[in-house]
Amino acid sequence: MANNEINNSKRHIKLSELNLPKDLKNLSFFQCNELCREIRRLLIKNVSKNGGHLSSNLGAVELSLAIHRVFESPKDKIIWDVGHQSYTHKILTGRLDKFSTLRKENGISGFPKPSESIHDGFISGHSSNSISAACGIARGMKLKGDNHHTVVVIGDGAFTGGLAYEGLNNAGKSNDNIIVILNHNDMSISKNVGALAKYLSTIRSKPEYLDTKKAVGRILDIVPAVGEPIKKAIVTSKTALKGALYHSTMFEDFGFIYLGPVDGHNIEETQRILERAKSFDQPVLVHVNTVKGKGYSPAERNPGAFHGVSSFELSVNNPEVISDDSYSAVFGKQLVKFAESDSKICALTAAMKYGTGLQYFAKKFPKRFFDVGIAEQHAVTFSAGLASEGMLPVFAVYSSFLQRAYDQILHDNSIDSKHIVIGVDRAGFVGEDGETHQGLFDVSFLTTIPNITIFSPSCYEELSHCLVTALYDTDGIAVVRYPRGNDKSEFDKSIVNSEYYYTGKSNSTLVVTYGRIYDNAVKATDITGKCDLLKLTKIFPVSDKITKIVEDYENVIFFEEGIKNGGVSEHIVSSMSNFRGNYKIVAVEGFVKQASVNRQLELFGLSIEKMIETINGVING
Amino acid sequence: MANNEINNSKRHIKLSELNLPKDLKNLSFFQCNELCREIRRLLIKNVSKNGGHLSSNLGAVELSLAIHRVFESPKDKIIWDVGHQSYTHKILTGRLDKFSTLRKENGISGFPKPSESIHDGFISGHSSNSISAACGIARGMKLKGDNHHTVVVIGDGAFTGGLAYEGLNNAGKSNDNIIVILNHNDMSISKNVGALAKYLSTIRSKPEYLDTKKAVGRILDIVPAVGEPIKKAIVTSKTALKGALYHSTMFEDFGFIYLGPVDGHNIEETQRILERAKSFDQPVLVHVNTVKGKGYSPAERNPGAFHGVSSFELSVNNPEVISDDSYSAVFGKQLVKFAESDSKICALTAAMKYGTGLQYFAKKFPKRFFDVGIAEQHAVTFSAGLASEGMLPVFAVYSSFLQRAYDQILHDNSIDSKHIVIGVDRAGFVGEDGETHQGLFDVSFLTTIPNITIFSPSCYEELSHCLVTALYDTDGIAVVRYPRGNDKSEFDKSIVNSEYYYTGKSNSTLVVTYGRIYDNAVKATDITGKCDLLKLTKIFPVSDKITKIVEDYENVIFFEEGIKNGGVSEHIVSSMSNFRGNYKIVAVEGFVKQASVNRQLELFGLSIEKMIETINGVING
Repeated sequence: MANNEINNSKRHIKLSELNLPKDLKNLSFFQCNELCREIRRLLIKNVSKNGGHLSSNLGAVELSLAIHRVFESPKDKIIWDVGHQSYTHKILTGRLDKFSTLRKENGISGFPKPSESIHDGFISGHSSNSISAACGIARGMKLKGDNHHTVVVIGDGAFTGGLAYEGLNNAGKSNDNIIVILNHNDMSISKNVGALAKYLSTIRSKPEYLDTKKAVGRILDIVPAVGEPIKKAIVTSKTALKGALYHSTMFEDFGFIYLGPVDGHNIEETQRILERAKSFDQPVLVHVNTVKGKGYSPAERNPGAFHGVSSFELSVNNPEVISDDSYSAVFGKQLVKFAESDSKICALTAAMKYGTGLQYFAKKFPKRFFDVGIAEQHAVTFSAGLASEGMLPVFAVYSSFLQRAYDQILHDNSIDSKHIVIGVDRAGFVGEDGETHQGLFDVSFLTTIPNITIFSPSCYEELSHCLVTALYDTDGIAVVRYPRGNDKSEFDKSIVNSEYYYTGKSNSTLVVTYGRIYDNAVKATDITGKCDLLKLTKIFPVSDKITKIVEDYENVIFFEEGIKNGGVSEHIVSSMSNFRGNYKIVAVEGFVKQASVNRQLELFGLSIEKMIETINGVING
Repeated sequence: MANNEINNSKRHIKLSELNLPKDLKNLSFFQCNELCREIRRLLIKNVSKNGGHLSSNLGAVELSLAIHRVFESPKDKIIWDVGHQSYTHKILTGRLDKFSTLRKENGISGFPKPSESIHDGFISGHSSNSISAACGIARGMKLKGDNHHTVVVIGDGAFTGGLAYEGLNNAGKSNDNIIVILNHNDMSISKNVGALAKYLSTIRSKPEYLDTKKAVGRILDIVPAVGEPIKKAIVTSKTALKGALYHSTMFEDFGFIYLGPVDGHNIEETQRILERAKSFDQPVLVHVNTVKGKGYSPAERNPGAFHGVSSFELSVNNPEVISDDSYSAVFGKQLVKFAESDSKICALTAAMKYGTGLQYFAKKFPKRFFDVGIAEQHAVTFSAGLASEGMLPVFAVYSSFLQRAYDQILHDNSIDSKHIVIGVDRAGFVGEDGETHQGLFDVSFLTTIPNITIFSPSCYEELSHCLVTALYDTDGIAVVRYPRGNDKSEFDKSIVNSEYYYTGKSNSTLVVTYGRIYDNAVKATDITGKCDLLKLTKIFPVSDKITKIVEDYENVIFFEEGIKNGGVSEHIVSSMSNFRGNYKIVAVEGFVKQASVNRQLELFGLSIEKMIETINGVING
């Protein structure tokens, strides 16, 4: 069908009839809007079944369509930041058939994944990396003589991360074909944070301007009539005048052409502004306003609750009501309890107030609660500053995201042995979010840092023990790490403490483990018999007591829900200089793909059945 | 002496006569300027003897004095970012007597160090952390009901780091007493980088304004005479109008009051603007212009060469002429050689063009050279982007600063197994810069990351071998790490390769080592006899070959110039499941204070003599 034949078509179409993304360019706006309705139904149906990010994806439907009508993927590269808004993009780029496998084992990922599709320009499970990646891609294309565009879609939340600014600062000085689309839904993961959010909201309230150059020209023509001081002040700076008109100087200060704001649910308008952005030979920032949860009323009313959801029934309006039964909630509530009698305790989150269970603290002690935005580096250094003044800061953060603050823990806290507490949430396997979100590295990278103590409780009761020890009985950096989800353990809680539990020596084989999988180890050793069990709660530093217990065995089996290199098992093995027996480390190597947590435990030898196999293998030679 | 008695005094004074910092407040401006001359002489004398940062300190003399006249340290907290501009501050806060011990063992540090003095508000060996730390300190003070100020002095170079923005964004929303002094010397470590530098230079060229409120008021009074469209555009936004006048909207967008620019070498002016900054109850940014190397003509003419200098003779104008004989220069020149025949090679630095030997590449291949500013995170993600387009990026960076890019290596490169090369410079002990700059952690944190290969050459020739293997014979992330300074090795170069060298088995004791200290190990084993030697060049991953060689011994001694936890020795020990002998790991634990590199090697058991002691101890029993 030729372009002009179809542009006003009211013929009904369906996703399944189209050759995507190619056919998108031939659709009428009527058909585009029809497609958007179909996509929304598909999103709601699949996220309700498989879990995932509903609100942000409902907000990016028209924007995704407009991008694929204006640009030519994969020749033009499209990068989503954070990637959880890319479901429509996935549907439009050959993954409609597989969309029902979203976030399932062997299914499609909930995040852009270059290894999954040539249309996913860059990996984006962690936020704020898109502009830097785009700089590299755009410059690489230019060096090869390729004039295609690199298009970034970045949410306002991701803009609170320092890496986004490093990218802006470096992109702005280039003349590369980078288009940064600010998807401004006024709703970063917890809520808008910081001065930037305020600034963006000011822009948001301004009407779209139609043509910068014309408008500026018109105004300047009138200027000669103005009194001299004003004239001078204005004429000296066209940029500043544009700022006066559009409040956009910040992005222009960074060397970007600023276009917008535009209504991101109006495909026609969005498409027009993207076409204009494409016409420049330098970095352009396009400001697009969208509504999170657009088109699904429960999500539109309460987008926070639908941010990252586990699978839910469509009839249930708030899918996160069960969160009270979670390690995060227990941590958050315990912290409130301690803070009631200790005014030094402060709580920090990097845009994950609800995810980390700190909403209770925020409500009760708003003056001592700080949501710093997606800025883990700042959170850790800010904590060091609070500690300098005798406060007791507690930063609750997902294991995977703490990776970004490695240097701030080491340089800003460890050298001066600041006493701070880090609550490492989502430690271990996280299930369906896949490679980018697994909490498997924290033990390895944290144990390289001096002046650090790490606790890894195996149940709710132990989490409380560990938290009080971390707060009041630990020098330097105290880390308490706990898994995503709830406590399903069935082991005897009378053994709970914040050091270790050892069955005593009755056998020549010892199983060593910690954290959530201790419960599996209890069951596995019960079934196999013939081996003793050592459960660590304070997992690091390795004490002489632990070394001595372990050295006394002929066979030692380590089960560790974490990366093998630099993990606790390696540290213990390295401490056993008098050991003459055999040992085996069962831990994670490489990256872990999406699947259920139970399946991941099984795949890496940490389910009850797999533990039994390993133990029997060792005992029977 | 009362204030008004002395304010116009022309009486000559000397640093040694004063009770510092208290007496500073009582001096006349005449006396202040006299003091500044004395301080400059002291700086030149001591830096020429001990090495250190000359230019940046000469640029901050009057500013330091003005700060201590306006604020009351340590009740007001003063934070320097990056800390190498703090020498005058040290002299003025009780460290005059010890100033000749600058950067020497047991002497005073070249960086602010809270453990050294109560006047050093926060640790600052790594840049861009000051505003975040100040946020924590200021909020901690406020929570305690303390109304003193937190004063940050941050260079324009440090502003290119993303953490500075995370800090700005969070500081701006508070009403805490934070004063950020932008020490703008237009000379970040290599040169000004990025859009921000351009923006700041624009401000720099504007005259200081005297009174914001008055000026804005005056202009607005005239506005009614202006044509309606203009009037509306202007009146709607006072902030924007201020922007039109002072180009300062960026900082104001972040919620700061903006004051300046002011001449930072004029104590009277600087003091006046700081007094005004102190009068506000919200974050203030004070823009101060200074000249690097002020008052010492060779440094003023060529501040880059005097940035961080080893000790030099005052008569020599360029103290870094010897740099041709250094690992950095060899790396940089080799890279040029490869880039001549391979147009895919790109070179990146984070504000350390000269420090990393990339000046040769920059000159020869300016289009493929990128100085991203102090933005290690961006450099690593930018590299991933380049690699996506088939380029071969090589990022040369100091070991200590690479810590800031841990997540970018892991998330943005490792998961998709991007092929990039990281040249880790200043790996191992760095000598006089002390705790904050040691390159001791890279092996431990990098080996937690999948898809990584690490080479650690022991001489220049081997560096070349490793670089070519990293570029063309390694998948994923290839790291080549090499020490600060020059190659002093004397071992037989016929053994050079990029895998390992093994003497073969003639004894029951084996010494395992790698990197610079291999030369010491050769000498130590020659002297002791009775032991074999295994030198690793590709140090990670640990191959089966290596494990098998090591397992075959009764005694194994590891010498490692790096942190013990998570180091190569631990990884090898963990791989030796069939080992039945004894082993001993000699590696670094904790932080390493300033001293010469040779002294540091001795202190941690890695000098020839200490190695001999250890070997004899193991062999004899």
